[in-house]
Amino acid sequence: MIEQNETARPGDGLDWSAVLDSLPFNADGLLPAIAQQHDSNEVLMLAWMNREALEETLQTGRVCYYSRSRGTLWRKGESSGQVQYLRELRLDCDGDTLLLRVDQQGPACHTGRRTCFYNVVQGDRLVVSEPPQVDPQAL
Amino acid sequence: MIEQNETARPGDGLDWSAVLDSLPFNADGLLPAIAQQHDSNEVLMLAWMNREALEETLQTGRVCYYSRSRGTLWRKGESSGQVQYLRELRLDCDGDTLLLRVDQQGPACHTGRRTCFYNVVQGDRLVVSEPPQVDPQAL
Repeated sequence: MIEQNETARPGDGLDWSAVLDSLPFNADGLLPAIAQQHDSNEVLMLAWMNREALEETLQTGRVCYYSRSRGTLWRKGESSGQVQYLRELRLDCDGDTLLLRVDQQGPACHTGRRTCFYNVVQGDRLVVSEPPQVDPQAL
Repeated sequence: MIEQNETARPGDGLDWSAVLDSLPFNADGLLPAIAQQHDSNEVLMLAWMNREALEETLQTGRVCYYSRSRGTLWRKGESSGQVQYLRELRLDCDGDTLLLRVDQQGPACHTGRRTCFYNVVQGDRLVVSEPPQVDPQAL
C-alpha cells in the first residue's frame, strides 16, 4: 500500500493506520529501525521493532524497540538512562525499514560511545574511531 | 570477535580479515547495510549485503548489495546510473550492521527521490516530504 505514495505530491499521503496494517514485517514480525540524531544527522544504531514497539513509540514519544535476544519490548534507556526521544518517524519507499529521527540522551551505545558505529575498516585493520564518553559500567 | 574492540583505544583495532570471518551474517547469509551520504550525513537507504557483496564493495570502491528479490548481487546504479562510491565502511559494536558512508550519484531511490525515506508520519497520515529530483522513468 505504501507504494501509492511513490507518485504522491509533497504534503499528500495516506491514512497511517491503513499503512500500518499493511507493513511488510518479516517472518519474526519485525522491521529494522535506524536511529539518527535529528540535528546532526549522525547514525547512532540499528535495532528492530515489532508492531507493538512501533505503536508504543509513536504514542509515548520515547523509543521502544523489540529485543531479539531477550524476546521482549526494550524501552531504550529504561535502566541505563540512554533514552531516545522521537522527533520524527520516517519509512522508506517500500515500507520495510524505519528511520527514527531522535534526540539521543547521552551515548547510544552500551560501550559508552555516542554511536554504535565506531569500528572503521582501514586497509587490513578494523580500527576504533572514538573513545567512550562515559564509563560503560555506569550505564 | 569484534567485541574485542569495545575496550580498544582510538586508533587500535583488529585484523579485518579475521573479523570478516567471524561476522554474524543472518540465516540467509546477509547483514543490513545503511547507506549514508558522507558529507551531509543524510540517510539514503537500507539494503542487504552477503559476504561476496561486502568484499566486492571494498575491492572496487563501488557499492554492491545483494538483492533479496532477485537473489543476485546488485551493483547499485549499474543500469540506472545511481552509483554509490564508498568513502568509508563502518560496523556497529556487535558487527551485525554495516554503515556505508558513500558519495551518492544522483538520487538513491528508484522513485527518483534523493533518499528512500520520504514517507513521514504526521498524526494520522503518512505524508510525502519531497518530490522526485528526476523522472523515475529515466532511471
